[in-house]
Amino acid sequence: MAIETIAENVLTADEVLSNWQGHRRLTRRTIEAFPEDKLFQFSVGGMRPFAEMALEFIRMAVPIVEGVSTGKWEEFKGTKPNTKSELLRLWDAQTAELDEKFPKIPPHRFSEVDKAFGQWEMPGIATIQYAIDNEIHHRGQGYVYLRALGVEPPPFWVRD
Amino acid sequence: MAIETIAENVLTADEVLSNWQGHRRLTRRTIEAFPEDKLFQFSVGGMRPFAEMALEFIRMAVPIVEGVSTGKWEEFKGTKPNTKSELLRLWDAQTAELDEKFPKIPPHRFSEVDKAFGQWEMPGIATIQYAIDNEIHHRGQGYVYLRALGVEPPPFWVRD
Repeated sequence: MAIETIAENVLTADEVLSNWQGHRRLTRRTIEAFPEDKLFQFSVGGMRPFAEMALEFIRMAVPIVEGVSTGKWEEFKGTKPNTKSELLRLWDAQTAELDEKFPKIPPHRFSEVDKAFGQWEMPGIATIQYAIDNEIHHRGQGYVYLRALGVEPPPFWVRD
Repeated sequence: MAIETIAENVLTADEVLSNWQGHRRLTRRTIEAFPEDKLFQFSVGGMRPFAEMALEFIRMAVPIVEGVSTGKWEEFKGTKPNTKSELLRLWDAQTAELDEKFPKIPPHRFSEVDKAFGQWEMPGIATIQYAIDNEIHHRGQGYVYLRALGVEPPPFWVRD
């Protein structure tokens, strides 16, 4: 029985964090690729500018990891960045926080069902996966903004 | 040691398939949301129309699952669909094939490093994750196309 359980499992917590941080490095390069004014103002089809999407990723990442870890769901309390360099500085601070806090998630919390921010009821790993998927989804939209601006986006497959 | 290994693992093969099929249902709804002609012709910023992206997902999904399963990396051999209903029919056939073939992946192949299509060297699970992430990424771009066309995209968080 124990052996079957091992065999069926295909991803460790470490691998999830490492996949996420790879995506976050790509998102950072996507932020960097935007001309400063376009990052905060440009969009297509009445959607949000990419800076607002990036801020959404920040609002989700560490608070979700803390919520999955502790069961306490608290909103992000930092100041909204107004320049690209402020946004990147905040991004890098969250990168370090994720590296510090993710490995402290108690293993049983990944499968435990909880109501994230009092609203989204699912196992911890599903909430984390949602944050990663949401980042990939909106970053893809940022790629269209960049193409519409005539800027080549960073290669999708590079995660270093 | 065995207990630690169980504790560190956070996702089973079943959960990966179920997350993927949830995303694929959302992608199907995204295809459906496009007016027929726009699906094959419309794009933003000189990018590909959404039908070509959807065909890319089809070219990756079953061939990757077969490659991870068997070690044989063979290109998709089906005919290129020219209408929305042909594309959806092909999509549904691949959904059934995934449900049939994914559970047959030998457990050790998820962690085994292989060279997907003779080119992309990584563990089986990473190749599968890449296909899922690539679908989320380009589907996000399809959402921008829909918004630019004045069409409301399907809600991102609904995966039923």
